Amino acid sequence: MTTSNLTSHISHLTSQNKNYVIIVAGGSGSRMQSAVPKQFLLLHGKPILMHTIEAFEQSEAKPAIILVLPAAYHTYWQQLIQEYSFTIPHQLITGGETRFHSVKNGLNLITDREALVAVQDAVRPLTSPYIIDEAYQCAAKHGTAVVAVKSRDSIRQVKESRSVSLVRDEIYLVQTPQTFRASLLRKAYEQPFDTRFTDDASVVEQYGAEIKLTEGDHSNIKITFPEDIAIAELLLSKKPQL
Amino acid sequence: MTTSNLTSHISHLTSQNKNYVIIVAGGSGSRMQSAVPKQFLLLHGKPILMHTIEAFEQSEAKPAIILVLPAAYHTYWQQLIQEYSFTIPHQLITGGETRFHSVKNGLNLITDREALVAVQDAVRPLTSPYIIDEAYQCAAKHGTAVVAVKSRDSIRQVKESRSVSLVRDEIYLVQTPQTFRASLLRKAYEQPFDTRFTDDASVVEQYGAEIKLTEGDHSNIKITFPEDIAIAELLLSKKPQL
Repeated sequence: MTTSNLTSHISHLTSQNKNYVIIVAGGSGSRMQSAVPKQFLLLHGKPILMHTIEAFEQSEAKPAIILVLPAAYHTYWQQLIQEYSFTIPHQLITGGETRFHSVKNGLNLITDREALVAVQDAVRPLTSPYIIDEAYQCAAKHGTAVVAVKSRDSIRQVKESRSVSLVRDEIYLVQTPQTFRASLLRKAYEQPFDTRFTDDASVVEQYGAEIKLTEGDHSNIKITFPEDIAIAELLLSKKPQL
Repeated sequence: MTTSNLTSHISHLTSQNKNYVIIVAGGSGSRMQSAVPKQFLLLHGKPILMHTIEAFEQSEAKPAIILVLPAAYHTYWQQLIQEYSFTIPHQLITGGETRFHSVKNGLNLITDREALVAVQDAVRPLTSPYIIDEAYQCAAKHGTAVVAVKSRDSIRQVKESRSVSLVRDEIYLVQTPQTFRASLLRKAYEQPFDTRFTDDASVVEQYGAEIKLTEGDHSNIKITFPEDIAIAELLLSKKPQL
């Protein structure tokens, strides 16, 4: 499969529907004690990133897929595509200095302002097609849809070295996908970068829009530390195959 | 081992040091899709509750152990003690209507007001002796010590159906043990029950004391759902044996 094939497929999808996903992989692998960035580590014998892409391919929304990777890994990814005979079409582009800049690079490819754009962590391979579709549906209605789960733990907030309890039922842990109307997301990403932008919801909120939450799943984990791979294998073996 | 043996051991420990732990097990097992309450489910071939008790026995603090179980399970627990030749001394008492009332029942046994009292979820079998000792040391100094970990996820707070982002670095997920000077904890537990009391820290904070946090561990998980057992097995196999 060549890059030009992928690009032409994107153009084709654009005319069919108005759904996109920008899959962001920035990890350098340092916290994984691994030379290989975590999005390429194997999960059930296949790179994590391929699981993530498959979830979107298997959704009803069937978005056009934009994959943002650091330039240094483009050749490696092409090799993995060959090695695993991975056939899901996607457009590969180069990441920026931070996650914020990577998403912005992806957004530059989306000219249709009425489209819906999901942003997805490459290292969340257990996101289900069902959750993906719910998020597109919510974003179609409200303009924003951020997947989140209620906290199972009591929560405390530390300010000026003093901790105060928050009301647990009000607290949500944010996951991805985070899905938005393209026009809104593009405008939000025109703001100057701010270190408080830890996810897309915080960028869009800062721009002034209300953020709607949709129900995630505690098994939709982010692969961050070495033990997370084994936990993901376990969770994957217990759920219906994607 | 008879109950009178256990009780006499408690008296013995009381004269040796001033550390206690109240281990609270209230779970009925409904969320585990299991007839057996989760604290009795097997983890590496041994009931979860025995792992939890062992962590405290292996700490430097070596607290006197008070175990609070619903009356309906006292006989079953005695049978498990026989079956697994479990020899760690502890005093078994009856739980109350809620976790709040169970802790209160445990506190009634501790007359030494200068003692340090940890409260521990029975279903956190991976708490390490190191974390336990740090909490007793912090509580000795400050009167309060609540084990917590920084959130790895972005956090949103929902109020009046509107969600707002919180600063992730300020947010801590609370675990156990939660350790306090006995005089403070007893006074705090004299307050009338409030549904916002989701843990001991919230009870003590409502009484007016400042809550100090100590560093927990993301692997110090609470066994709540069926997949948690398998995750705990995995985490246990990856850490040095307790």
